[in-house]
Amino acid sequence: MELVETVQELNNALRNHRHGVIGFVPTMGYLHEGHLSLVRKAKKECDFIVMSIFVNPLQFGQNEDLSRYPRDLERDFDLARKAGVQVLYHPSVKEMYPSEPLVTTKVSESISNVLCGKYRESHFDGVTTVCAKLFHQIKPDRVYFGQKDAQQLAIISQMVEDLSFQLTVVSCETVREEDGLALSSRNVYLSEEERKQAVILSQALQDVRIGLESRKWHNTDEINNYVRDKITTMPLAEIQYIEILTYPDLKAPTSLYNKQILIALAVFFGKTRLIDNILFPTEGDSHVPYDDEIKITSSNRNRS
Amino acid sequence: MELVETVQELNNALRNHRHGVIGFVPTMGYLHEGHLSLVRKAKKECDFIVMSIFVNPLQFGQNEDLSRYPRDLERDFDLARKAGVQVLYHPSVKEMYPSEPLVTTKVSESISNVLCGKYRESHFDGVTTVCAKLFHQIKPDRVYFGQKDAQQLAIISQMVEDLSFQLTVVSCETVREEDGLALSSRNVYLSEEERKQAVILSQALQDVRIGLESRKWHNTDEINNYVRDKITTMPLAEIQYIEILTYPDLKAPTSLYNKQILIALAVFFGKTRLIDNILFPTEGDSHVPYDDEIKITSSNRNRS
Repeated sequence: MELVETVQELNNALRNHRHGVIGFVPTMGYLHEGHLSLVRKAKKECDFIVMSIFVNPLQFGQNEDLSRYPRDLERDFDLARKAGVQVLYHPSVKEMYPSEPLVTTKVSESISNVLCGKYRESHFDGVTTVCAKLFHQIKPDRVYFGQKDAQQLAIISQMVEDLSFQLTVVSCETVREEDGLALSSRNVYLSEEERKQAVILSQALQDVRIGLESRKWHNTDEINNYVRDKITTMPLAEIQYIEILTYPDLKAPTSLYNKQILIALAVFFGKTRLIDNILFPTEGDSHVPYDDEIKITSSNRNRS
Repeated sequence: MELVETVQELNNALRNHRHGVIGFVPTMGYLHEGHLSLVRKAKKECDFIVMSIFVNPLQFGQNEDLSRYPRDLERDFDLARKAGVQVLYHPSVKEMYPSEPLVTTKVSESISNVLCGKYRESHFDGVTTVCAKLFHQIKPDRVYFGQKDAQQLAIISQMVEDLSFQLTVVSCETVREEDGLALSSRNVYLSEEERKQAVILSQALQDVRIGLESRKWHNTDEINNYVRDKITTMPLAEIQYIEILTYPDLKAPTSLYNKQILIALAVFFGKTRLIDNILFPTEGDSHVPYDDEIKITSSNRNRS
């Protein structure tokens, strides 16, 4: 595995691999099994795997955890190499933003002003801007994102369509601890007691799924109240939001059973903000369909 | 020359030409010598030339001339072919915008709220969005823009840097009629009398250049007053703006002779809005340097 830190080094490292399918896994580092599962999926579908590690200042708010975001490049390097990453791109902030960017990407409030975006002003402008830059620098054919950041996945897919990026966004299932807690680099912040109580998030969502499968729930309020009651049994949990939206267009659903829906939540344990979600029905990559052709254009997708 | 109307047709047409240098000339059609001079420059520097003709609704305001913007595809086709264009891309609005785009590009007010952008709200958001899409669809190595739309050229160059597009923006000199009038598709709107009077724009700018060369001017007010007085000798001229800014960063200059400056104006003749400008000193492509390597990355450029 090659570690590169500049666009020039990246170009050199990729020059002889452009004939094959390039898979890209963007991360903020502090890798866990969730990231590595993206790499494994990419390995199955691509000829050459690039991972980026970049803690993007543009997507952190003023009161967020940019400075204390966990980092361990040496460990990440080792994990990425073992998972089969061929080029690890770790640019400096100066390489990515030599000066304040004056032309950026902007996400419509209709999809940014719900879920996490409602509480993290301009977060998704920062996410899409850094992804646009990374997509231009790496020029991948397939890009891998986890469903845990469901809004991010929906918005990146929207950007790929709207800006005509010629690449395929691949949606990957959330990886969980044995007790159900969704993997996150931020889990390291949790105290032992917080960690124990945090299991309530996936338990509540699992109950919701079972209820949906049996058509027990009649409307979003029922689900919302159930999840709220269940989570508040944990004294350290402080709910930021519980939202039920259609997916991937992130609108209020008129029915629970017409279209794919997202049940998503963000809950603080102490200072640590955890998110989790489920999609119902579960269909793996259904909303970004798998294609027989590896290179599919966005307009192809619209027509298919 | 091949005429293509969809991304898929475009991909087919370009498939066998990716090994060479692809030059791209984006236009809104109704071609004139200005556009053709871009093609001729591209021919010298590239192996394969793509031109787009797309009147982009996103960059027109509600009270602007979208519906009456002049069009003549048959004539354009002929002119493009004779000039040496190999693929003419003429997508429909539906091909470019199958639905309202929710993720777009956004230009900072520091460079969009001056010159034309001040009078055309969100115009440059529309220009950068359509260019980002075209760049993704065509994947050119070199893209050709005229200096007549100086703010557009500055903003596109800024986008290429800020979003890390891996392509070179080539700046091309304004082409003029024999009497000095800058070529524009909108010149066709002018009555005979308006056309006669419109020559005052280039004459005023030419006087300014001569004054700058002899260091006659001491500050921007002197130039501004001179140009205003000269243009108002024409009874049909209605000045929208005369602005003097540093180029390409579009800031108020502290001196006329420290950095490259732009003297730009927009003047109505009847309903027809004409723009013109000069750069001083004139240095052809100096602010977007010519490169020996054809493929140069934006980060390379920052370091050079």
